[in-house]
Amino acid sequence: MIPDHDRAIFEAGIKLGALYHQWVGTPISRKSAAGVESAIEQAVILQPFVEVITVRLDRNLMTENVFGYSELSGLMFDVEIVTRVGFTYCRARLAPKDGYPLMQIVECYAITEISRH
Amino acid sequence: MIPDHDRAIFEAGIKLGALYHQWVGTPISRKSAAGVESAIEQAVILQPFVEVITVRLDRNLMTENVFGYSELSGLMFDVEIVTRVGFTYCRARLAPKDGYPLMQIVECYAITEISRH
Amino acid sequence: MIPDHDRAIFEAGIKLGALYHQWVGTPISRKSAAGVESAIEQAVILQPFVEVITVRLDRNLMTENVFGYSELSGLMFDVEIVTRVGFTYCRARLAPKDGYPLMQIVECYAITEISRH
Amino acid sequence: MIPDHDRAIFEAGIKLGALYHQWVGTPISRKSAAGVESAIEQAVILQPFVEVITVRLDRNLMTENVFGYSELSGLMFDVEIVTRVGFTYCRARLAPKDGYPLMQIVECYAITEISRH
Repeated sequence: MIPDHDRAIFEAGIKLGALYHQWVGTPISRKSAAGVESAIEQAVILQPFVEVITVRLDRNLMTENVFGYSELSGLMFDVEIVTRVGFTYCRARLAPKDGYPLMQIVECYAITEISRH
Repeated sequence: MIPDHDRAIFEAGIKLGALYHQWVGTPISRKSAAGVESAIEQAVILQPFVEVITVRLDRNLMTENVFGYSELSGLMFDVEIVTRVGFTYCRARLAPKDGYPLMQIVECYAITEISRH
Repeated sequence: MIPDHDRAIFEAGIKLGALYHQWVGTPISRKSAAGVESAIEQAVILQPFVEVITVRLDRNLMTENVFGYSELSGLMFDVEIVTRVGFTYCRARLAPKDGYPLMQIVECYAITEISRH
Repeated sequence: MIPDHDRAIFEAGIKLGALYHQWVGTPISRKSAAGVESAIEQAVILQPFVEVITVRLDRNLMTENVFGYSELSGLMFDVEIVTRVGFTYCRARLAPKDGYPLMQIVECYAITEISRH
């Protein structure tokens, strides 16, 4: 009843909202950042309707506190996700904009014809 | 560029994914459940594009562990949210289905005409 | 085998570490802060060995983002907890110090004699 | 003023409480478990006073939901941590006991003499 187009968008929103609140607050440093990026990607890709997920965390914001580490905050995220329901795709992004960690739909598209040769 | 319809759906997904992962794991009991429901509602309603949010947590699943309390788990959630972008609305739900905490779009609608008398 | 004194301290640490990471990232505003304080207190008091818990969130740090709300961050917390194992108590605190959300033992004490009249 | 012995215990409690609530709810599978174990270890070792941390997640409990993955739950954790303040150490553990994810002090010890040859 709900079109694939709508469901693909909905799933993209769910995944971005979920990863943000699951991971914010994690102790992190420039050295450990790659491991956390990979762990987030592995956790997200497990979930239904996720086709592609790339997570990049901004090392420049990982300034050390008095104990020499930092905490994963919303503005560090640069995430791109592609979800798919049926043959419809939604590409969405989480990235800083005007000091806010903004989630946005980038584009939606459907595969309507595949040529075979 | 992205239609209001699509954005309303996207925002509904974000909010449901976010609240799930923010609150899962919270110590809870039948007695404290109402306070947690209210705190979740108050946190979600703060966020942009949220028109309505109701959170109901299933007391029947709050079985006590050896220390006399329980932990908020995914299957306890029964949440309904209405988001709005422009004059387009999306109503979505998080509720258990077949043993899984399922998030689903319920309906989308737009206000196209308001009669004044 | 482990003295009550040590266990009371251990439990105080557990509770402070847990509440910090459970609640950091929650959308919050000056208006909703009291409800969140109360929800945290109610969640913590459920857990074993907790005698007293008071949570105060710093409204001054709740500056509004472009969407008019804020996010619960570590430096907002001012928490005092008293744990008890047997007749030994540990009072500990989470509060900002030099720009870091510091957790510290305040004092430990035991009740060794109760006078009855 | 607070003895190193007490502070080492307090820090062990903090770290176990924190990691539990940071990571519970993460989507996980048998295939991704090793990456999550490593990410948790890397996050904890960054924090002050942590000497050793080993995280083992119980694959047997990672039963697949209808979408083919699982969610990190408290009973999956088997964690051992050693904290150190000055020359005093605390070894503590998070592991299931009687159906509850129990955190316990294993032992505390101090290095009082180091022989040099």
